[in-house]
Amino acid sequence: MAAPYTLRWGILATGWIAEVFTKDLLADPALRGVHDVRHEVVAAASSSSKDRAADFLAKVKAPSTAKAYGSYHELVADPDVDIIYVATPHSHHFQNAMLALEAGKHVLCEKALTVTAAQARKLIETARAKGLFFMEAVWTRYFPLSIQVRNLIKSGAIGTVYRTTADLSLGNDAGDGKVKFDDAHRMVNPALAGGALLDLGIYSLTWVFQTLYHLQPEGEKESPITIAAVTKYHTGADEATSIIVNFPRHKSQGIATTSLRVSTDPDGQNTAGPAIRIQGSEGEIQVMGPAYSPLQYRVIRRDSPGKVEVVDCPIPKDPITGWGQGMFWEADECARCLRDGRKESETLPWEESVVIMEVMEQALRQGGVEYPELITTDVYDPQSPLNTGKR
Amino acid sequence: MAAPYTLRWGILATGWIAEVFTKDLLADPALRGVHDVRHEVVAAASSSSKDRAADFLAKVKAPSTAKAYGSYHELVADPDVDIIYVATPHSHHFQNAMLALEAGKHVLCEKALTVTAAQARKLIETARAKGLFFMEAVWTRYFPLSIQVRNLIKSGAIGTVYRTTADLSLGNDAGDGKVKFDDAHRMVNPALAGGALLDLGIYSLTWVFQTLYHLQPEGEKESPITIAAVTKYHTGADEATSIIVNFPRHKSQGIATTSLRVSTDPDGQNTAGPAIRIQGSEGEIQVMGPAYSPLQYRVIRRDSPGKVEVVDCPIPKDPITGWGQGMFWEADECARCLRDGRKESETLPWEESVVIMEVMEQALRQGGVEYPELITTDVYDPQSPLNTGKR
Repeated sequence: MAAPYTLRWGILATGWIAEVFTKDLLADPALRGVHDVRHEVVAAASSSSKDRAADFLAKVKAPSTAKAYGSYHELVADPDVDIIYVATPHSHHFQNAMLALEAGKHVLCEKALTVTAAQARKLIETARAKGLFFMEAVWTRYFPLSIQVRNLIKSGAIGTVYRTTADLSLGNDAGDGKVKFDDAHRMVNPALAGGALLDLGIYSLTWVFQTLYHLQPEGEKESPITIAAVTKYHTGADEATSIIVNFPRHKSQGIATTSLRVSTDPDGQNTAGPAIRIQGSEGEIQVMGPAYSPLQYRVIRRDSPGKVEVVDCPIPKDPITGWGQGMFWEADECARCLRDGRKESETLPWEESVVIMEVMEQALRQGGVEYPELITTDVYDPQSPLNTGKR
Repeated sequence: MAAPYTLRWGILATGWIAEVFTKDLLADPALRGVHDVRHEVVAAASSSSKDRAADFLAKVKAPSTAKAYGSYHELVADPDVDIIYVATPHSHHFQNAMLALEAGKHVLCEKALTVTAAQARKLIETARAKGLFFMEAVWTRYFPLSIQVRNLIKSGAIGTVYRTTADLSLGNDAGDGKVKFDDAHRMVNPALAGGALLDLGIYSLTWVFQTLYHLQPEGEKESPITIAAVTKYHTGADEATSIIVNFPRHKSQGIATTSLRVSTDPDGQNTAGPAIRIQGSEGEIQVMGPAYSPLQYRVIRRDSPGKVEVVDCPIPKDPITGWGQGMFWEADECARCLRDGRKESETLPWEESVVIMEVMEQALRQGGVEYPELITTDVYDPQSPLNTGKR
């Protein structure tokens, strides 16, 4: 067996999602049955201080060789780094990912990819022009569960899929008209592109897209007609958004919902049932939530009344540390693409990321949600406060 | 105990729904615990022939005194009839209900009430001007189950309700691009105001409205913003419609869906779960389908993880014939309203029927569905073919 292909990562930002992802990067690929690729954490950067980056590397138990940087500029200049994982809030993604691409680095950029569709297009143009790999980090798409579900649909197991409903709602009502996030929190703060849709609704849309749009044959892809209802929070961000994406030519509709007040799973035990229903002419595939990290799906067939095929897809855990969140699968995809010279992933092509950003942008526009110029501009500025951390 | 109030019915049309309703009228009210009102079937009319009406009366086992008419005009002129049950396709409702009101009869009119909101308004104006009782026959609202669910919501059992999703989809895909209805069938025939929304989607909207709009306090009622996606069948009728009704001031959203191709209940055993999810800040009420005739609801509370309160609400059946469909409850409501001098039902006020018609009209307009002038006009014509049965 050939030696595994090694991908060397630089982690841009040191918050919660950076921590989860990096710990997954450091998990032994063999534990998930992966032997053809491996990951190295080469460096991490905080825009505020080198100490913070060092603390981060210590916390995730990165190798002692990993370098700590106090600026994103230093990180993207590191010649030992192959790919940058952009782990900032989505308000920052465009500027941070541009910084990395302009420095000649491949990029895995957290979702939501950007704040506007124009920003997403600009990033992709840049990646294409520079011959760099670029991918939106919608980790759920790379779950074996997602792959199985897509394959089931392709196999015709539930006939033709005409409708998918998907919800990710976390139940954070505070009971006093507010939700359980401080107004400055990224979930509700317009300055950070806050709101339910870009943070949570992207997962509902992921299920709508990977079961409808993604499976439309090449050459028959149909950009959806998007309509949306938005409930605005007092900060101006969306606290609840419901979107219908209509594909008239395919006679299919997707309904993606998200809310900060109600919950897909009110009792936290999935008692309420599936978060996702993929409805075909011959049956239905139900995916138990949460939509971002599903562990079980069920198949109900019209011709097998009362029978449910239940399939569990656990995330492999490290037997010693107990760690394993399922973000490693998207990292493996990055490694394989780079190994094979592919600039984009077939599982989430550039074009599809842009269409999804267009849907979200239209939804927010229909709902009258507006974000500030600093985070919506598609003019790259290496000295943007979003890149320097300075006000 | 006082003698029960007796309501004397005239049945306008002799099709399937007329049969079900009339057999329910003839069921012993005591079997459902009702002793204050009773129903008499006085007459029935077919627009095509007296024989057809006579056959109908024989089939439903109406009393031998019941009169058979070969025209709607004769029926509405019968002085023994208090109230007309309009059981024609919804294409005919406006003209038929006007015929009855103009003849001075109270009216229970099948759903969907009309084809346009203007028609609904005209009917209500006429009923008001003439001091007649008028009600849309959305029978599900009068189910004890519906009453219990509304009371549960009012009691705050699941906190503030912010979102309701409701689906009625019957799974009639034929596998060859068509659905299992002949193009002339009322389900898909634009000449009969065919399509999923007016026939099935009205029930999805019923759940959205009775759990959101209906429970908004008087004086705080908020007409929704309606957005809809429509998939058109080759006949021009809608084969699938998804509607979001947004109540921004109440921060609530309702999502009502219907489809002829996929099914709420693909295996016919409710294995797929609830048809309706009423989502509050503290929990969720789930109603098992079909949305028009639900027999069970479940309550999931945030503070009782893993516990589901399951409440069965069977429809009382005649122990001898086995009959009982649950349409008698709306008939009882008509009798009580008339007994008490009320012209409209508090459970489905005129104003609410109009708002729902406005929502459906907007949805179909957004989807580009058009119906012919004959069935959309709001000019009453006693000699309309819809009243005479003549072409």
